[in-house]
Amino acid sequence: MKITCQTDNLLKGVNTVSKAVPTRTTMAILECILIDASSGEIKLTANDMEIGIETIVEGSILERGIIALDAKKFTEIVRKLPKNEVTIETDSTFKTSITCEKAKFDIIGKSGEDFSYIPNPNRNQPIVISQFALRDIISRTIFSVADNENNKMMTGELLEIKDNKLKVVALDGHRVSIRNIELKNPTSDVKVVVPKKTLNEIIKLITGGVDDLVNIFVTENHIIFEYDRTTVVSRIIEGEYFKIEQMLSADYETKIKINKKEFFDCIDRATILVTEGDKKPIIVNASEGTMSIFCSSFIGSMNETIDVVKEGKDIMIGFNPKFVMDALRAIDDEEISLYMLNAKSPCFIKADDGSYIYIVLPVNFNNPGAN
Amino acid sequence: MKITCQTDNLLKGVNTVSKAVPTRTTMAILECILIDASSGEIKLTANDMEIGIETIVEGSILERGIIALDAKKFTEIVRKLPKNEVTIETDSTFKTSITCEKAKFDIIGKSGEDFSYIPNPNRNQPIVISQFALRDIISRTIFSVADNENNKMMTGELLEIKDNKLKVVALDGHRVSIRNIELKNPTSDVKVVVPKKTLNEIIKLITGGVDDLVNIFVTENHIIFEYDRTTVVSRIIEGEYFKIEQMLSADYETKIKINKKEFFDCIDRATILVTEGDKKPIIVNASEGTMSIFCSSFIGSMNETIDVVKEGKDIMIGFNPKFVMDALRAIDDEEISLYMLNAKSPCFIKADDGSYIYIVLPVNFNNPGAN
Repeated sequence: MKITCQTDNLLKGVNTVSKAVPTRTTMAILECILIDASSGEIKLTANDMEIGIETIVEGSILERGIIALDAKKFTEIVRKLPKNEVTIETDSTFKTSITCEKAKFDIIGKSGEDFSYIPNPNRNQPIVISQFALRDIISRTIFSVADNENNKMMTGELLEIKDNKLKVVALDGHRVSIRNIELKNPTSDVKVVVPKKTLNEIIKLITGGVDDLVNIFVTENHIIFEYDRTTVVSRIIEGEYFKIEQMLSADYETKIKINKKEFFDCIDRATILVTEGDKKPIIVNASEGTMSIFCSSFIGSMNETIDVVKEGKDIMIGFNPKFVMDALRAIDDEEISLYMLNAKSPCFIKADDGSYIYIVLPVNFNNPGAN
Repeated sequence: MKITCQTDNLLKGVNTVSKAVPTRTTMAILECILIDASSGEIKLTANDMEIGIETIVEGSILERGIIALDAKKFTEIVRKLPKNEVTIETDSTFKTSITCEKAKFDIIGKSGEDFSYIPNPNRNQPIVISQFALRDIISRTIFSVADNENNKMMTGELLEIKDNKLKVVALDGHRVSIRNIELKNPTSDVKVVVPKKTLNEIIKLITGGVDDLVNIFVTENHIIFEYDRTTVVSRIIEGEYFKIEQMLSADYETKIKINKKEFFDCIDRATILVTEGDKKPIIVNASEGTMSIFCSSFIGSMNETIDVVKEGKDIMIGFNPKFVMDALRAIDDEEISLYMLNAKSPCFIKADDGSYIYIVLPVNFNNPGAN
């Protein structure tokens, strides 16, 4: 194989596929990036068997061939090459020379034959969505996906399309995050649960704006993201996702309008006294016109009052501060509305236009002591 | 005690003294910041017994007193307070209230009586130097100070003043870094070895420019830095520093002029193939008009040639790439000069004006293979 391309193009390709190189694996070949110049294009591929990425690099093929190169070393070499034309040449023993200006690297590659190519299932009609919108709704919900593997379904995020509306849902048993957007292009209904790891890579990879599009295909076992000249294929989580609708009861006894930043800063201060692992709740106490937030631990206590607009009953309720802060961080609105029924029922933070719903379960507290 | 001050002033003071709070200590009182408002000023102090820092915070004393507060929690509280007037009030049981706008923290402090105040030795005439210059010469040499404690003298940096010239020297047995500057203010001769830890904090603390001054006092056991309203006192390393002059032999057989960035980038590339812990040298081979750099490991090899101006003999010599790169990083000149005698003798990187000398010892290499 002998190819030439610009360092910048090669680096972009290498950085893209690197996201699918496994950090730990028993299959040494998966630690490689495959350069496939056996057809008319230079194609880079990496695959950790959960997620696979391939991308086309612009360049010239002087001699067709395939080589697999250690991903870590190859990435580092490409990153540190001068910005100029780079030549990659292999011989029949997989010895690979990488030459750029006066610098020449000789490393030993591997045969591409053992490499696991990424699956290429039959595609139906794509879901077309702007790269910005996709990244936005994922990054504003993904923090609610469960980290531990006890419940497989909780380790993924639901993507559901119904009547041209895309809903994403993430939950971990303590909270639920939901985002809704309208799709511009007509699309058939779909329901799929995508692993957190895949979505984490997707929001790093798909960096385009509102006018850049990504095509999403959902097949029986896979979800495929196609954008620019890159394809990301991921396994999906099989099974039935949780029934969301029955969690979204509209009953409430207390509605509070509050400045988001004030609320966030106040919780942020309240949690200073809570040491890690020490699961102290914040206690929220809403009455006419004000809401006080109280937190105490063996170190000391903190108490602060915020002006709010309250409708309905007074309420005293405890929360895990992290869960409330995570939700607030994902909201851009200056003013937000909290809906609560009682101290045992979940608190809803909802947009008037239905674009988001964040649900946080309350926690028990022993010592009100707030006032 | 009852004091008020602006959050910003308090935060600046807390951040300053925090640098002297020990990360691990058996004396709980040292984990505190002392607020001393017993005289007419609000003074913050922290002290890890190696280095002590005190600083004056602007504010009002409504009731004189002293309190010691847990440094970590107090810092975090101050950092997250609204930017406004903060009140700190203590009672006779050391209960401390920190109030700012509507936020109120209650924490338990400690009596200031057990606190170790920082030493206050008699001061002679100060060495006056610009904050920028001090930071500059330390940060361009400190990387050469030895990390391990086998040789106590190597864990400090020599500051020597002779005829109004300040020389700083750092060495670790493999390399020597020397910087020289002329002092503007007449100063008596001094020779002192300052611990690396102290200098590391000094370059973070003393952030002023060329027109901001710092006064340095050297006493029998301490070095004292005074700037703005802050005092840093550190122990010094006692004993006789290494004889530098005899290392600075002026003999050489080869002089090479080389572009610093090209040389640096080339070594940076050459070391990609060297895995950590694998002490592979780079082999430098200088002949007429060019210098080749070669490095090989079990992963592969790298070879690159740079145009240079060479005077004197050809030479082939091996180096630890890290030591050469550290020195190059500390030099701003676009073009540098290397002086070498033979493959067993140190390489000098020297400024024509004498402002710096970096010395790197060569290493043995088995396999030349460069060409």
